[in-house]
Amino acid sequence: MSVLIHFSMFPTDKGTSVSPYVAKSLRIIRDSGLPYKLGPMSTAVEGEWGEVMAVVEKCFAELRKDCSRIYMTLQMDYREGALNRIEGKIKSVEEKL
Amino acid sequence: MSVLIHFSMFPTDKGTSVSPYVAKSLRIIRDSGLPYKLGPMSTAVEGEWGEVMAVVEKCFAELRKDCSRIYMTLQMDYREGALNRIEGKIKSVEEKL
Amino acid sequence: MSVLIHFSMFPTDKGTSVSPYVAKSLRIIRDSGLPYKLGPMSTAVEGEWGEVMAVVEKCFAELRKDCSRIYMTLQMDYREGALNRIEGKIKSVEEKL
Amino acid sequence: MSVLIHFSMFPTDKGTSVSPYVAKSLRIIRDSGLPYKLGPMSTAVEGEWGEVMAVVEKCFAELRKDCSRIYMTLQMDYREGALNRIEGKIKSVEEKL
Repeated sequence: MSVLIHFSMFPTDKGTSVSPYVAKSLRIIRDSGLPYKLGPMSTAVEGEWGEVMAVVEKCFAELRKDCSRIYMTLQMDYREGALNRIEGKIKSVEEKL
Repeated sequence: MSVLIHFSMFPTDKGTSVSPYVAKSLRIIRDSGLPYKLGPMSTAVEGEWGEVMAVVEKCFAELRKDCSRIYMTLQMDYREGALNRIEGKIKSVEEKL
Repeated sequence: MSVLIHFSMFPTDKGTSVSPYVAKSLRIIRDSGLPYKLGPMSTAVEGEWGEVMAVVEKCFAELRKDCSRIYMTLQMDYREGALNRIEGKIKSVEEKL
Repeated sequence: MSVLIHFSMFPTDKGTSVSPYVAKSLRIIRDSGLPYKLGPMSTAVEGEWGEVMAVVEKCFAELRKDCSRIYMTLQMDYREGALNRIEGKIKSVEEKL
């Protein structure tokens, strides 16, 4: 019951440069052991619903230590039986180009 | 540690009319007892992170029974110490108009 | 060829309180004459693609005067032939509850 | 006045497999000549507001030929004076890991 999400979470009370906070999240994602892919606007993560949401919650808990306002946008795509979609979806589109 | 989210979750394998599925989610949200507000493109819910995410997960579990592809977009806004924001944020903007 | 969008646009370099900036956008939306609905996390607007996107661009131009970093999330839903959806979609779901 | 967007646009009336439609959009993006990056859940594009939105509109016009319901989610990040952000933002985060 694997899902694919991508999300972007950042403080809005820390001025224009937020990459240190994005790096904190990325470290948590990397240490989760789940497949992930960092993009310019979001990070994709694949796993069971509970697994990926636990990672997102950890990122939130980490940012909340330092930040008094935090925004997140998250998209989720579930396709029954589908696996290894982080690379698979990109390939599937590129093959049709 | 209240957060405000809004989200939209729908099957993409059921053709153009998805309001029966949106209604299933709304019933789950209503039965959660959390403050919520149905909008034309999404439903806002307010509560602890764990509370609102549990509601979102229930909606996903419900849709997964019938649907083999499901999409969700979710936005979260956390503001330290802020409460009753579903109505509060609208009022705050309208006062400044 | 009407579309329904909702969007949220805000500076991320102005600290925790951004409602003055949201109010600037809402004034532009209101003055457009298009049907709209302010929600706690976003504002819905309905019209032709070109009409609604022109409004969004005006909001961006307004915020850019004062802000050096701006974030926006926007969702669009197109349904062939459908009109008056800001109220219609809410009613359609509530009837099924 | 460059902006960075990423977006995902897909029909919801065509069943579970939508990669042919995503490929149509990607062809339009590629042919625009703007810097872009295909990800598993969205495609990032960089350019002037008017340039990137013109590309998004072309994708919509293309899909509308065949599809009676279309959904899009789009995020935009503007940072005054910043350029070459598709690779730059990823590098900036990876350096901090």
